[in-house]
Amino acid sequence: MKLTVPTLLINSSTVEHNIDVMLNKLSDPGKFRPHFKTHQSKEIGRIFKRKGISKITVSSVKMAQYFEGEWDDITIAFPVNINEIESINQISSRINLNLLVESVFTANFLSENIGNDTGIFIKIDGGYNRTGLPYNDGRIKDILKIIDSSKKLKFIGFITQSGHTYNARGIEKIQAILDENIKIRQELKLIYGSTYPQMIFSYGDTPSCSIVDNLDFFDEIRPGNFVYYDVMQYHIGSCKLDEIAVVVACPVVAIHPERNEIVIYGGGVHLSKESIEADNGFKLFGYVVKLDDNYHRTEPIPGVYVKSLSQEHGIIKADDKLIIDTKPGDWIGILPIHSCLTANLLRDNQIII
Amino acid sequence: MKLTVPTLLINSSTVEHNIDVMLNKLSDPGKFRPHFKTHQSKEIGRIFKRKGISKITVSSVKMAQYFEGEWDDITIAFPVNINEIESINQISSRINLNLLVESVFTANFLSENIGNDTGIFIKIDGGYNRTGLPYNDGRIKDILKIIDSSKKLKFIGFITQSGHTYNARGIEKIQAILDENIKIRQELKLIYGSTYPQMIFSYGDTPSCSIVDNLDFFDEIRPGNFVYYDVMQYHIGSCKLDEIAVVVACPVVAIHPERNEIVIYGGGVHLSKESIEADNGFKLFGYVVKLDDNYHRTEPIPGVYVKSLSQEHGIIKADDKLIIDTKPGDWIGILPIHSCLTANLLRDNQIII
Repeated sequence: MKLTVPTLLINSSTVEHNIDVMLNKLSDPGKFRPHFKTHQSKEIGRIFKRKGISKITVSSVKMAQYFEGEWDDITIAFPVNINEIESINQISSRINLNLLVESVFTANFLSENIGNDTGIFIKIDGGYNRTGLPYNDGRIKDILKIIDSSKKLKFIGFITQSGHTYNARGIEKIQAILDENIKIRQELKLIYGSTYPQMIFSYGDTPSCSIVDNLDFFDEIRPGNFVYYDVMQYHIGSCKLDEIAVVVACPVVAIHPERNEIVIYGGGVHLSKESIEADNGFKLFGYVVKLDDNYHRTEPIPGVYVKSLSQEHGIIKADDKLIIDTKPGDWIGILPIHSCLTANLLRDNQIII
Repeated sequence: MKLTVPTLLINSSTVEHNIDVMLNKLSDPGKFRPHFKTHQSKEIGRIFKRKGISKITVSSVKMAQYFEGEWDDITIAFPVNINEIESINQISSRINLNLLVESVFTANFLSENIGNDTGIFIKIDGGYNRTGLPYNDGRIKDILKIIDSSKKLKFIGFITQSGHTYNARGIEKIQAILDENIKIRQELKLIYGSTYPQMIFSYGDTPSCSIVDNLDFFDEIRPGNFVYYDVMQYHIGSCKLDEIAVVVACPVVAIHPERNEIVIYGGGVHLSKESIEADNGFKLFGYVVKLDDNYHRTEPIPGVYVKSLSQEHGIIKADDKLIIDTKPGDWIGILPIHSCLTANLLRDNQIII
């Protein structure tokens, strides 16, 4: 291996597999607007493009700026930060841009300050209780009134993101969240469908898009994490271990047989401090795999895991065999807990294999 | 305020104060080798330089490369990653470089591959159990033998980093760790002092360097976090609230009076996912302060805090007053839990005030 520092290895075959699986759940690929906040990579984006995807989701103005050279239809799936209106107007002068609104205040601001035709989604709370309005909230009508009286704001539809599936463990709980959002979509169609027959309901999140075989009951889906998956998704039940497309290659810098620990160069600034916690307080910071000279990985080594992270160090709880087989300078692979955060940290240190 | 996105505001007066306080604990400023992994900023580095500091600590080869243009005496306080030997040899051809070794394997590798005169610290475990050898470990003599027989490796001394002070709560526990390391220094002097009369004992970590008034009992100290401090250090007891030199300015993007929550643009990719956990499972992701137009902050608002973070979102648990006073687009300040990780994430978005 010719690597020198912690590096994100991205398996392009697994990426393609993960995209194909998601695409096969839709009768119309035009319903797919994948979220690019996970990979944040033009090169990975091109794999989507080769599969016929033409529109994408991002989570910041900066990400829209990064992708707009290659993509001309972008939704920024984050409540509008009005301080960025100048950049927003620049982007919308060049491509089709959709924004998220959930308040009368922001709708009014956009109505007064928007520079070009811009699509507007109204953010609905699909049960996550992070952002969005309840589907039966009176403010939705007020926002629609502002949009309708603007020449440049175009109402596209409603959007939800069921981030609470990340806290669900088990298929039934995720299915319940999915069902709730199918119901919300129906209610919204009942209330607003006759006035806005073209409106769509856009649905996000990897866990619920992963557990069902057919996603045609939504007008648009926006999962992002599925392209790489990770240990958290495996724990939730969204993916199989061999569908995790990324692994962080980390150099071994110290070995402590007396406590069965291996120290790697690979810490919170590479993997992020995201962890999975068991009820007894046990924290898991990543699974450990072996890497061959072609950067391919094994399945996780049973009983071996990343037990803690500091800024640059990771501590692996190893078994006797791994301790004996390992020397400083060797490379060990870590399956990340949350690939979105890990890929963000390793944007400048990644290899697609 | 002319900011547009989450931005780290660094108060240079507080930075100067924090450096002065630390310097005043040493009779000789030459004993001070501050760790630069916290700020990772040439500009903050220059404040140290103006105060007479001439040597620094970093935690990666990459950081050494970043600082070597302005600093000619750098210790990389991380066990050598032998895969980076080429970069190491380039740096040591230009400046005084010290490395950390804790295994015979790595010592042998360096002895065979080092290109220029290079200082070597042997890493001692000061009780943290992360890296390093016990002070009475037989392998220390083996490593010294390898160093002594090399023409280019120069033994500088022993180095510890008491990262376990981060888990200590209360002055007594930190004092006990400090005392243990003073004892380790004495033991090492007894064993090796006559053979290596010039050797030094280098001691790190912000909590223990913060709680005492005098640090002359070590030959070198390497705290890093103290330059900014943070909520974790405040909880540990290392600093006062007004000694926290950084605050992340975040735009408000949504307000939910029905559950007293404010959504900010400011998530795990800005603040890091580091949290402080109470025994009852409660997690704190940051304190909340107000900001004036000159970027100055108030003390934390009592009872108001960051309750959760996702990739780009932060959720603030607010009180009635803050809910009423706030509208989308306003700026709110977050005191970070762990300033090292936050500053690392906001390297490209910071302002020194």
